[in-house]
Amino acid sequence: MTGSPLEAEITRLREEVCALHAELTRYGLVVWTAGNVSARVPGHDLMVIKPSGVSYQDLAPELMVVTDLHGVPTDSLPGDSLPGESGGEWGNPGLSPSSDTAAHAYVYRHMPEVGGVVHTHSTYATAWAARGEPIPCVLTMMGDEFGGDIPIGPFALIGDDSIGRGIVETLRNSASPAVLMQSHGPFTVGPTARDAVKAAAMCEEVARTVHIARQLGEPLPIAPEHIASLHHRYQNVYGR
Amino acid sequence: MTGSPLEAEITRLREEVCALHAELTRYGLVVWTAGNVSARVPGHDLMVIKPSGVSYQDLAPELMVVTDLHGVPTDSLPGDSLPGESGGEWGNPGLSPSSDTAAHAYVYRHMPEVGGVVHTHSTYATAWAARGEPIPCVLTMMGDEFGGDIPIGPFALIGDDSIGRGIVETLRNSASPAVLMQSHGPFTVGPTARDAVKAAAMCEEVARTVHIARQLGEPLPIAPEHIASLHHRYQNVYGR
Amino acid sequence: MTGSPLEAEITRLREEVCALHAELTRYGLVVWTAGNVSARVPGHDLMVIKPSGVSYQDLAPELMVVTDLHGVPTDSLPGDSLPGESGGEWGNPGLSPSSDTAAHAYVYRHMPEVGGVVHTHSTYATAWAARGEPIPCVLTMMGDEFGGDIPIGPFALIGDDSIGRGIVETLRNSASPAVLMQSHGPFTVGPTARDAVKAAAMCEEVARTVHIARQLGEPLPIAPEHIASLHHRYQNVYGR
Amino acid sequence: MTGSPLEAEITRLREEVCALHAELTRYGLVVWTAGNVSARVPGHDLMVIKPSGVSYQDLAPELMVVTDLHGVPTDSLPGDSLPGESGGEWGNPGLSPSSDTAAHAYVYRHMPEVGGVVHTHSTYATAWAARGEPIPCVLTMMGDEFGGDIPIGPFALIGDDSIGRGIVETLRNSASPAVLMQSHGPFTVGPTARDAVKAAAMCEEVARTVHIARQLGEPLPIAPEHIASLHHRYQNVYGR
Repeated sequence: MTGSPLEAEITRLREEVCALHAELTRYGLVVWTAGNVSARVPGHDLMVIKPSGVSYQDLAPELMVVTDLHGVPTDSLPGDSLPGESGGEWGNPGLSPSSDTAAHAYVYRHMPEVGGVVHTHSTYATAWAARGEPIPCVLTMMGDEFGGDIPIGPFALIGDDSIGRGIVETLRNSASPAVLMQSHGPFTVGPTARDAVKAAAMCEEVARTVHIARQLGEPLPIAPEHIASLHHRYQNVYGR
Repeated sequence: MTGSPLEAEITRLREEVCALHAELTRYGLVVWTAGNVSARVPGHDLMVIKPSGVSYQDLAPELMVVTDLHGVPTDSLPGDSLPGESGGEWGNPGLSPSSDTAAHAYVYRHMPEVGGVVHTHSTYATAWAARGEPIPCVLTMMGDEFGGDIPIGPFALIGDDSIGRGIVETLRNSASPAVLMQSHGPFTVGPTARDAVKAAAMCEEVARTVHIARQLGEPLPIAPEHIASLHHRYQNVYGR
Repeated sequence: MTGSPLEAEITRLREEVCALHAELTRYGLVVWTAGNVSARVPGHDLMVIKPSGVSYQDLAPELMVVTDLHGVPTDSLPGDSLPGESGGEWGNPGLSPSSDTAAHAYVYRHMPEVGGVVHTHSTYATAWAARGEPIPCVLTMMGDEFGGDIPIGPFALIGDDSIGRGIVETLRNSASPAVLMQSHGPFTVGPTARDAVKAAAMCEEVARTVHIARQLGEPLPIAPEHIASLHHRYQNVYGR
Repeated sequence: MTGSPLEAEITRLREEVCALHAELTRYGLVVWTAGNVSARVPGHDLMVIKPSGVSYQDLAPELMVVTDLHGVPTDSLPGDSLPGESGGEWGNPGLSPSSDTAAHAYVYRHMPEVGGVVHTHSTYATAWAARGEPIPCVLTMMGDEFGGDIPIGPFALIGDDSIGRGIVETLRNSASPAVLMQSHGPFTVGPTARDAVKAAAMCEEVARTVHIARQLGEPLPIAPEHIASLHHRYQNVYGR
């Protein structure tokens, strides 16, 4: 299997996904092991995701787990599931994928434009989620990055497709790459895993800034046409 | 004494307890010298704990103090207190054990399932303790880790068994591995010292998130059966 | 072109501007790529500014972009625009200058005493900006550094001169080197880029301290003559 | 002069005072250059203090300034001011002492038991100072370290003895080693400079914790006899 383009791509994604977890800690988005990043393997029904229960300082590229888009690690797949490849092993580390893998996988199955997914319990975003309140778009940087309010997704228990379905249904009705799952925390998406991590960092930053603004009064609204103009420019002219 | 299995175990626990104090500073749970970790020596009436008054950056494994389960350093024990060993010295550094040693020791004497104890004055948990208010379980990650509210223990002065007794009586009536001692701060327990440190980090994180959520309204409740389901899954399926 | 005094000055300013971005992260003023520092090239209609979309940890002096005072990179200038020089190239890295370059350039064109400009979305300052409220001068360190309230500038969209004009008109009516652009964030100026970075750090610090003071009541006012006395001493005797 | 016991003591204190500034940044007590530590030279009318306007990362022991107890650098003293020494030079770096030197010097002249003084504008302590409100003693760690409320000192302008006088008069009527100067910030004292830095770190920590507690209700009071008992034990049995 050595040297195939797919294997090279997986090696690269393992390095990228591993390195992006350091951004989660750099921006203070996670405590202990409670956050995870994944990346789609472009052109294949595969994803790369954090192993379960490993501390951020102990992560290494070879510990990242490759699964199919139902969250099954490739070493559990029948040998013929990857045409032209001799087996499903892919050098998986024998660790379980993140306990949030089903939600990531659901997103990849239903949103083909998404190349990366991030889940955290970042403090301020989770506080909005605990009240079930969307974050209103009252900052120009929210217009740029989110194109409007950051919406709330439904309360959903882990264990089946409810979290994934809640994420997808909420994001489809919004310009935002971030959704706050009620009583739980934020999920963010992007064309790449790095974009999804940026959205996670910006989501926490605007959750915090708008929270602080509202502690002493009401933030001034921004007109919808100004929000649309900021978002259009940021996504097109500025070139996200 | 060199080379006995008990001595090897104590050497290992001194390294672990010392290293875990770095996690207290990594997660911002302590200021100056105001927090401590201990571990039970499995199968013996002994514990390993932080020395009193030493800064976190000056800690080293050989400075950790070994005491019996009444908090008496082993170098003060009569030589026959440890069958098969020639004395009570155990290479103790001549430093006093943490001023909170009596509370840790009480917990080990009365909760045989506990292998590690942590005490901090982490800011948000201590703020709830100052009002004497339990932290309500309004986040899925609280359901996972704490199985319900984080309870308040009684006001107790240092100097006798009152703190230890307050911790044990409160924890026995709760699923939570954390208790907030009134006007004082959190104590956490776990099967190992590392589990108790994780509980201390998660306790501060949920104390902070729920505080912030409540600053701008009331968090939505989570149904008791959902909390039970999250806790059961996390403790069993997910495999804590 | 090698060895000219102008080139040596630009090399020095590239190093300084690059290094000052590390102060933005040291003081927690920026997330991801959302903040920028520039410096005027003294005696020339030129400025040095952060490239667009590069992470702070990837910045290097040679990536800083040299532009004229309308924000046009020097490699786009006609060869005769710089007397005695053979072209407009200046070793520019081929990166675009920060998307906020037009605002920086406007400030340099209209405030000849300004040698450095900084823009951030630092959290507490941006929270005041979101409410459109000036920060009242209720701390002696605000009297020292800002000489009074930190004022609010108008709401302005990116894309033309409105942001720059709003900054300049607001600062001209104030002793403060900082202005909070409504719904957007702070811009600060100074005789040098380092002074502007200091003003950005102090602006966030006083925004945070006054916010926290006001959460539990009203800060005590400082008499205007005391503010004037503090500011005069700090700017003259203490020798800013 | 080389090799005299006094010179050796000053060399040691320069190293200690320099190193203690790193603790101010470690505990987040200072921004830019806005905080300072000094130490009395025991048995001499001399003190060692931070130079004015030098960034914390640029400090070095030889940059610390030696002054008399009126804040005059020793290189400005007449040669006969130090009996048995040939001059007033003491290797001073030619830098001005901190702009707060007069306040430190006043404290050393009037409180002979004080060996170290620290001034910061740490955020939460300064927020209490901005409202002119003492911090109520509602945490056991406040009883331990401060023996009661942390008091407010008068509003005082820099430039004469008013700040020093306000500190001394307030501390004389209190068990606390910390005073919050109104609209300004905290000053702390201790038998050594290290004790004063510890008091500064603990002052900010309790200012923050009590602030957060009060955001959502009233902290429970601690009975005065319990505060007295905690303070007595901490200062005597525990051995501060």
